[in-house]
Amino acid sequence: MGRIVCAGLGPGDPDLLSVKADRAVRRARHLAYFRKAGRPGQARRIVDGLVAPGTTEYAMEYPVTTELPFDGPDYRRLLASFYDHWADRLAALAETRDVVVLCEGDPFFYGSFMHLHLRLQGRAEIEVIPGIPGMAGCWTATGVPVTWGDDVLTVLAGTMAETDLSRHMAAADALVVMKVGRNLAKIRRALAAAGRLDRAWLVVRGTMPGERVARLAEAEIEDCPYFATVVVHGDGRRPELPE
Amino acid sequence: MGRIVCAGLGPGDPDLLSVKADRAVRRARHLAYFRKAGRPGQARRIVDGLVAPGTTEYAMEYPVTTELPFDGPDYRRLLASFYDHWADRLAALAETRDVVVLCEGDPFFYGSFMHLHLRLQGRAEIEVIPGIPGMAGCWTATGVPVTWGDDVLTVLAGTMAETDLSRHMAAADALVVMKVGRNLAKIRRALAAAGRLDRAWLVVRGTMPGERVARLAEAEIEDCPYFATVVVHGDGRRPELPE
Ligand SMILES: C[S@@+](CC[C@H](N)C(=O)[O-])C[C@H]1O[C@@H](n2cnc3c(N)ncnc32)[C@H](O)[C@@H]1O
Ligand SMILES: C[S@@+](CC[C@H](N)C(=O)[O-])C[C@H]1O[C@@H](n2cnc3c(N)ncnc32)[C@H](O)[C@@H]1O
Repeated sequence: MGRIVCAGLGPGDPDLLSVKADRAVRRARHLAYFRKAGRPGQARRIVDGLVAPGTTEYAMEYPVTTELPFDGPDYRRLLASFYDHWADRLAALAETRDVVVLCEGDPFFYGSFMHLHLRLQGRAEIEVIPGIPGMAGCWTATGVPVTWGDDVLTVLAGTMAETDLSRHMAAADALVVMKVGRNLAKIRRALAAAGRLDRAWLVVRGTMPGERVARLAEAEIEDCPYFATVVVHGDGRRPELPE
Repeated sequence: MGRIVCAGLGPGDPDLLSVKADRAVRRARHLAYFRKAGRPGQARRIVDGLVAPGTTEYAMEYPVTTELPFDGPDYRRLLASFYDHWADRLAALAETRDVVVLCEGDPFFYGSFMHLHLRLQGRAEIEVIPGIPGMAGCWTATGVPVTWGDDVLTVLAGTMAETDLSRHMAAADALVVMKVGRNLAKIRRALAAAGRLDRAWLVVRGTMPGERVARLAEAEIEDCPYFATVVVHGDGRRPELPE
């Protein structure tokens, strides 16, 4: 009987894998990861220096990413059967061997592995190794603490509707917006409407080669990549408390 | 010229330090950490197996923790001078050597180090190594993903006023409440008022020896420790999307 181990990889710098995830990846003989068809894949790239020669690799290629509308039935159906397929394959593999599944950041925090995890319940032994979420790599890259004292932190997905975004932005102290990419212009408008634009930072590829950190109001927004996060730091309601 | 390196330690399991933090702690010759007077200190305990013999240690003992009211002027004054003192000492040390400062979880996420970081600006070279936030260890311990698709995650401090807590609890999809300890009864009432109590989990000492995971509605609440976090998982507004 094998196991499925999902290793959280952290924000991108291979030195930011946990000791446990680093060990799991180095020891893996069967390694699975998501990627866009035709791309090397960010998760696989993070562990480039760690994968042992002779490891069998399973590239789980999304059948579709941005070609179809997110909320359409075709999109959902394609993805559901993609996840079904890979859950079946991993469950079959795990009958006789260990498989390590890579996941950027922390697996249980908006991670694609969750869709496999759901489908693998009761069919295989699963271990999830938490990771540093991408956002922690991003706020660290800004050089400024993100939350103090009683600050409320709200994490939003840039895919949300503009009015929902601004409502949540106005209610929080510190803010993180993920899934920025093509939603950047909308996120900017929502921040402006909530009066938070001038305190917002954009972090592109935090802790990875080519990391960029800029004030969002001044950032150039042509073709914002997928690995981009918006951070608004909290003010600290009670800055002198011991935490 | 030395440097000050703040190493995020993650939720508690020493295997969840990043490779980078692990290396920094093992190589440290000068090691500083916060603790309550008379206690070993959680941060120091996490690295028990890593500290090299002969390392000089600096226990930064809070002058006060729960003896005085949080919002009183005495409390603030005592703490401010405590942070001033240690910022001065670390800056002096860093003139001639490297000092590693330990921080539970992620340093820039409600971490005490932030108060030193603020005071050390322009006085020493500082590097911050991000860590897995305690909450990620906690939601992983529940065995259930915390956020899907467009879920909004809100992180709250249990020290907030009850009505503020419930207002934010009602507005979010997924929830994390930190700084639980003596605030547990209040947090429970606020969750009940927001209609979220039956989906709430309590994780005590996540990833540490003695970890406990329970539904909050059923948990025994006598003497809840400081290292306790409440988690309410999101439902996933669009569960079939690739993240
Ligand atoms: C679907 S989520 C996966 C999150 C991942 N499980 C985590 O814990 O960070 C992908 C989003 O995370 C954010 N992200 C992750 N790593 C990042 C990095 N190194 N730099 C900037 N953004 C990052 C981006 O907003 C990206 O669109
Ligand atoms: C002042 S905050 C420091 C947070 C830390 N910098 C982090 O990133 O987790 C301390 C709070 O974090 C939460 N916490 C941290 N580690 C935890 C763990 N292993 N289990 C449960 N709660 C934890 C508790 O709510 C605790 O009161």
